Amino acid sequence: MRIILDGMGGDNAPEEIVKGAVQASKLIRHDIYIVGKEELILKELDRYEYNDQQIRVVNADEVITNEDSPVRAVKKKPDSSLVVGLTLVKSGKGNLFISAGNTGAIVVASRMVLGKLEGIDRPSIASIYPILGGIPSLLIDAGASSDSRPANLLQQATMGSIYMEKVIGRENPRIGLVNLGAEAGKGSMLTKEAYPLLENSSLNFVGNVEARDIPKGACDVIVCDGFTGNIILKLTEGLAWNILKLLKKKFTDGTKAKMGALLLKNKMGELKEEFDYSEYGGAPILGVKGPVVKMHGSSSASAVKNTIIKAVPFAEEDVISLIEKDMYDLEEIIDEKEY
Amino acid sequence: MRIILDGMGGDNAPEEIVKGAVQASKLIRHDIYIVGKEELILKELDRYEYNDQQIRVVNADEVITNEDSPVRAVKKKPDSSLVVGLTLVKSGKGNLFISAGNTGAIVVASRMVLGKLEGIDRPSIASIYPILGGIPSLLIDAGASSDSRPANLLQQATMGSIYMEKVIGRENPRIGLVNLGAEAGKGSMLTKEAYPLLENSSLNFVGNVEARDIPKGACDVIVCDGFTGNIILKLTEGLAWNILKLLKKKFTDGTKAKMGALLLKNKMGELKEEFDYSEYGGAPILGVKGPVVKMHGSSSASAVKNTIIKAVPFAEEDVISLIEKDMYDLEEIIDEKEY
Repeated sequence: MRIILDGMGGDNAPEEIVKGAVQASKLIRHDIYIVGKEELILKELDRYEYNDQQIRVVNADEVITNEDSPVRAVKKKPDSSLVVGLTLVKSGKGNLFISAGNTGAIVVASRMVLGKLEGIDRPSIASIYPILGGIPSLLIDAGASSDSRPANLLQQATMGSIYMEKVIGRENPRIGLVNLGAEAGKGSMLTKEAYPLLENSSLNFVGNVEARDIPKGACDVIVCDGFTGNIILKLTEGLAWNILKLLKKKFTDGTKAKMGALLLKNKMGELKEEFDYSEYGGAPILGVKGPVVKMHGSSSASAVKNTIIKAVPFAEEDVISLIEKDMYDLEEIIDEKEY
Repeated sequence: MRIILDGMGGDNAPEEIVKGAVQASKLIRHDIYIVGKEELILKELDRYEYNDQQIRVVNADEVITNEDSPVRAVKKKPDSSLVVGLTLVKSGKGNLFISAGNTGAIVVASRMVLGKLEGIDRPSIASIYPILGGIPSLLIDAGASSDSRPANLLQQATMGSIYMEKVIGRENPRIGLVNLGAEAGKGSMLTKEAYPLLENSSLNFVGNVEARDIPKGACDVIVCDGFTGNIILKLTEGLAWNILKLLKKKFTDGTKAKMGALLLKNKMGELKEEFDYSEYGGAPILGVKGPVVKMHGSSSASAVKNTIIKAVPFAEEDVISLIEKDMYDLEEIIDEKEY
C-alpha cells in the first residue's frame, strides 16, 4: 500500500512532516510518498536514516497557503502538493492521502479531484472528541458544511458509524443526535426531521444527546450539522484551555498552593494529556471517492507519525466501498420521506 | 415597586423560594408578593421573622409541573402561580415577575399573558455565561427558539445590549456573533446574513466570535440562535463538571496526590465557585411586555435572594420601554434588507 503524504501542508512543514514520516516508516510495512518541493523534502530526509525504497519523494512545486481561497487555490495551483497528492490517489497510484494543510482547501480539493460518492450531497469531516477519563467519541460533521438537511445527518451518521467501527475499532457504535433535550419531539426543524430518519435506519441509534452529556461519553458517534460541530469542538478546546490556565494561576498563588501543586505535578500532566487529540490520529474527510485524512495544522512529528499509523485501516478495510454500498440503502429511506 | 415571585415553581418550592424571599426583603425596600398555595406559603413564612407589610401572599391553587406541555398548561391552568403572577404584572399590580418553574412554560405564559413587544418575532432568554477569572458575559438566545432568522439575531443583540448595560451595568457592551471564523464572509446562511445587519446597527458590534474565544470573554453579549445557545451553555456545564470530577479522582489517587490536594483545597473551592451562576442572578425573558426572570430550577434560598436583588434594575430602569423604542429603529434596518 502507498500512503501519500502532503509534505508542504501545515505550520511545521516540511520539517515535522518528514520527521514523522521517517518515524512511521519504521513501524509499518507500507510505502510513504511525500509530495512537495523535492529539494526541500530531500534535504530534510537526509537528516535521518531511512529506507529509500519505502519513503519516496514526488515533486510538486506549488504550495497552497492559509491565505489562498480554497476553490481558487485548487484551480490555480494544479502543481501544488495537495492537488498532486490527491491525483495520485484518484489514479490508483496512491491508496490514502494525508495532509496538515488548510482544512477548507483539503475538503474542496478532495471533492474536486476525487469527486463525491454517489448519494452524498456534501463531504463531512469527522473529528475525534476526547472523553476525559474514557474512550474518545467521533464527531461528524466537524465543520465541512454548515447548513445541513435532515438527509445529510443520516448520511453523516452512517459514514461515522462505519469509520468508527472499521478504523477506530469500536464495535456497533452508539449513534447520538445532538439536540436540545432527550425527548424525540424536541429540537430545531433540522433535528426534528433527522430523528425519524435515524430511528428508521439500521444504525445503533441511541436517540438525542444533550450537549451536557457529550463530554461524559453519551455516545460513540456524535451527529450534528457542521456549524454545531465546530461550536462543540472549539468550545471544548477553549474551555479546557481556560480551566487549565486558571488552575495554573491558582496553583502558583501562595507558598501552600505551590507546595500542593508540586505534589500534583504528575497528575496535572496526565490531565493535559487527556486533551491531546494527536495520539488518536487525524480527521477523515468522508463522502469522497478516496481515503483522505486531515491532520492538525500544528502537528508535531509525533502527531504525524500517529496519524499515519492510525489511518492505515482507513484504506486497508476499504471503508470507501462500505460507505458507497450503504449509501444505496439510505436512498430508500430518504426517498420515501422525500428529503 | 412590587416584585411578584412564583412560590410554586422549581425543585425546591416553596421552601427555598420563601426563605430566599425573606432574606431578600431585608436587603431591599420593595414589596414581594409570593404567588402560590396560600396555606403552604404562609406555613413556610411562619418559620421566619418577616415584615408582613412587605411580604404578602397571593393565592393560586394550581401548579404547573415539568410534565405539563407548556401551551396546554397555560391554557388549562389559569389559576396556576405562573398565570396568576404574570397577570398581576400585566394589570400593573406587579412590576417584575420571577419564577424557578419550567422554562418552556414561563416563555409560553409570558408570551400569552403579557404579549410580545411590537417588532419582536419571538421572545428570547438571555443567560449569564461565566468567564473564568473574569467578568461574566450574557448569552442570548439561550434556547427560547431554535430556528432563528437573521432579523431575530439583530433583535436579540439589541435586547441583550440594553439588558447588559441597564441591569448588569456594563457600559457600551461589546456584541459578538457566534460564528465559525473571525472573518466577515464565514458561517452558516443565518450568520452570514445577520452579520451586515449587526454591522449596520448602532450596537457596539465587535464582529464574529469563535467558540474557542467565548470562555475567554471575547465579548460581553454573545449572540446566537437558541439551538446554538443551548449547546454552548450545556456543553460548558457538562465539560466543567467532567473536568472537576476527573481532577477530584486524580487528586485522591495515591498518598502524594492526596497531600497535594489537601494543600490546594481552598483553591479548588474557588474554582468551583467560578462556575456558580447563581450569584449573578437569573435569566430574563426578553421581547415580552413586562420584566420576567427565570431562575434555575434547583435554586437555593441564596440563589433566590440573589436573583431578586439583581433583577430590581430590570424593572426600575424601565428596560422594556427602552427595548420597545429601539425595536422601531431596527425595523428600518430590517425592512430595507427585506428580512
